[in-house]
Amino acid sequence: MQIELTKEFIDQVKDAVDNQYSAFLKETFEDFYPTDAAEIMYELDTNECIYIINQIDEDFAAEVISYIDPVTRKGFLKNFDSEHIASYLKFIDSDDAVDIINELAVKQREEVIAHIERVNKEAAAYILELLRYEEDVAGGIMAKELIKAYIHWNVKQCIEEIRRQAENVERFYSVYVVDENEILLGIVSVKKLLLSQDYTTVKDIYDPDIICVESYRETEEVADMMEKYDLEAIPVVNVQGKLLGRITIDDVVDVIKERAERDRQAMTGISEDIEEDDNVWMLSRARLPWLVIGMLGGLLGARFIGLFEASLALVPAMAFFIPLITATGGNVGVQSSSIVVQSLASKSLMLDSLGQRLLRVLFVAVINGLVLAALVFGFNTVLGEKTNLAFVVSIALFCVVMLASLMGTITPIILDKLGINPALASGPFITTANDLLGLAVYFLVANMLLI
Amino acid sequence: MQIELTKEFIDQVKDAVDNQYSAFLKETFEDFYPTDAAEIMYELDTNECIYIINQIDEDFAAEVISYIDPVTRKGFLKNFDSEHIASYLKFIDSDDAVDIINELAVKQREEVIAHIERVNKEAAAYILELLRYEEDVAGGIMAKELIKAYIHWNVKQCIEEIRRQAENVERFYSVYVVDENEILLGIVSVKKLLLSQDYTTVKDIYDPDIICVESYRETEEVADMMEKYDLEAIPVVNVQGKLLGRITIDDVVDVIKERAERDRQAMTGISEDIEEDDNVWMLSRARLPWLVIGMLGGLLGARFIGLFEASLALVPAMAFFIPLITATGGNVGVQSSSIVVQSLASKSLMLDSLGQRLLRVLFVAVINGLVLAALVFGFNTVLGEKTNLAFVVSIALFCVVMLASLMGTITPIILDKLGINPALASGPFITTANDLLGLAVYFLVANMLLI
Repeated sequence: MQIELTKEFIDQVKDAVDNQYSAFLKETFEDFYPTDAAEIMYELDTNECIYIINQIDEDFAAEVISYIDPVTRKGFLKNFDSEHIASYLKFIDSDDAVDIINELAVKQREEVIAHIERVNKEAAAYILELLRYEEDVAGGIMAKELIKAYIHWNVKQCIEEIRRQAENVERFYSVYVVDENEILLGIVSVKKLLLSQDYTTVKDIYDPDIICVESYRETEEVADMMEKYDLEAIPVVNVQGKLLGRITIDDVVDVIKERAERDRQAMTGISEDIEEDDNVWMLSRARLPWLVIGMLGGLLGARFIGLFEASLALVPAMAFFIPLITATGGNVGVQSSSIVVQSLASKSLMLDSLGQRLLRVLFVAVINGLVLAALVFGFNTVLGEKTNLAFVVSIALFCVVMLASLMGTITPIILDKLGINPALASGPFITTANDLLGLAVYFLVANMLLI
Repeated sequence: MQIELTKEFIDQVKDAVDNQYSAFLKETFEDFYPTDAAEIMYELDTNECIYIINQIDEDFAAEVISYIDPVTRKGFLKNFDSEHIASYLKFIDSDDAVDIINELAVKQREEVIAHIERVNKEAAAYILELLRYEEDVAGGIMAKELIKAYIHWNVKQCIEEIRRQAENVERFYSVYVVDENEILLGIVSVKKLLLSQDYTTVKDIYDPDIICVESYRETEEVADMMEKYDLEAIPVVNVQGKLLGRITIDDVVDVIKERAERDRQAMTGISEDIEEDDNVWMLSRARLPWLVIGMLGGLLGARFIGLFEASLALVPAMAFFIPLITATGGNVGVQSSSIVVQSLASKSLMLDSLGQRLLRVLFVAVINGLVLAALVFGFNTVLGEKTNLAFVVSIALFCVVMLASLMGTITPIILDKLGINPALASGPFITTANDLLGLAVYFLVANMLLI
């Protein structure tokens, strides 16, 4: 059952917890999909959540816990002892189990694994293996659960294996074929399996042309590959080609969304992963760093303009166009860097040399710069601004467009080479730098031509 | 075979086309995955592409064409007659075929469909049905190809159906169960099918608890559902619950990526879908609209500051802090709107009323505003700025942070209510508006306290 969360429903649940209507809660919650049940938890306090989790079946509770977001879950699991946590983990996939274990304190982590080892040696071995990988590589998001067949098997043996693993492997798209050394040789699609006779050997029906990924590859690379080849799952191998695990598309969708989110934060100058309903202090803290950097830029700008105090006293109208110059520099810079960030992310083939790319940027800047400068000159003339000031503003504007284009193009390329997220270049950084650059150009040109 | 595209390889291909090494091209290309072959096409000119497409097998060529991006494909297919295009379309899924048909001129569209109708009435009917849907609803991205079983069938009949459809249905995750009126009743997983006896009836093994989507739902809603419930495919039904088609995860990954891309463009003020290697004119045109809006904002700002020319002549130092004020307003506004855009996109449960949300925004603004104002006052005092000017700047800065927070929060909410992409609020729009607002606050405060 899918649900529409309403305030009435949440109140009803809270009321049921207060009155310990355990049967009602069990029935209501187990009717939901686990991911919906997890969403309800966000609206309850920790004690209410714990009460509900304890009423519902362990396997359902385990799934709900695996869907709760890491931050909430961390606080929540503090209230369970290690044995209790271990008893949930046995119901969920190894990759999700490892995520949860990683959120525990080191001591509890050991205890939980020891408890799992006591009941299921294989599951514990899986977890220990997966714990070795960093979170941002293929090994860190793969699950150990998969259906594997030896090449000398027949279809009947494959189906037996599927039956044996039926409980462990929830999503099942194909059978991975290995040799006696566990080296990945190929794949048998479900369709092939269904349409083949029982005693056909795997060798005769498997497809040796398989896309796989090494365990050390970055998750973003894995996401790109799965997207490009439209895969619902990809096998993970070690350097020798031994089959280690498999990554399914749902994990990769998370990677894609996280990347988009991270870039958005970089572009808007927010330094932490926050949401609108986080508390005021967290929200303020996440936003201050870039605001302070922008402020320092502004103060530097103030010092710089201060150098021209005498000129300003003579021609106060020079000040009128400061916002025009800085805003245009900022906008042009953000646009330029955003285009570069996009082509860095898509990893599209760039046969053009850096020189050719910069040449194109230059051309675009010349066109945009000329159009803007001409428009501003026209407006200023119509509005009766002095011709020499109008002239200075347009020249400065043109120079600012050129410089900001160049800065906006080069900065993300340099950041990327340094291994820093190039999307940062579309954020307050480039805006602040371009503000200063724009001011410098404007006042130098104005000082030369007006005073 | 996966490939690493190099300039040498492209030259080799170009050379092979020039010398009409048809066998070499056929062999080389058919060794690739279609998506890789499509990428090579971007590096060749149209005539080279056409020559290659004509050398390779029709079914492989069809897949390559389905992977080429729409803009390139549109130009490319101009060189094929309707019959030729129809002959390719029969090899690809109905949803991809419809995408391609939509890119053709109206007259050619009719011709192509007529050609398809002559060889395959069912395929033509599928295409005509899908053409009815808008691109941004579930019906517009679904494919008609799927495996369907009637509830009174047995497993053996299902497998027969799979065999019959094997060529048409490439991705196969489960069998959809319908009644005699084609009403969707549930689903049989592949695993269940493999593990059941031949004469078990579908009725005994199907799962009636199925997540489906109506054809008129927006694609983004579909993406959210598939992501939330970790689905690799979702059946599409009409309002009566009749099974119409199915959407697979690869199409939804595209939806997710397009959304991120569209937001990024909105945030950076780029009005078209462009890439770094597009031509100079396209790049300039896509960027100009927002630059001009920013420019108009700048000119309005100039007029506004002009009102205070006399005050500026008296206290030229007032001009020093213009960039600080406008930059801070811009940064705060972008941050605020970005947080709102995020919570609008995640459609997370917002039990808080608008009032509560604004109150929290206000608190955050007060904290950030106080910190920035204090820091600026400190710096200005240390740097020897006059105390009353330092005081004015800090008061104005605090007001600007408050106002920009409010604007940044309200604008995306209003845009969203009007059905406009709220991410636009994080772009040049909010920056320009905040520039003007900031200037107004600063000069009014300064004029009141200084002159």
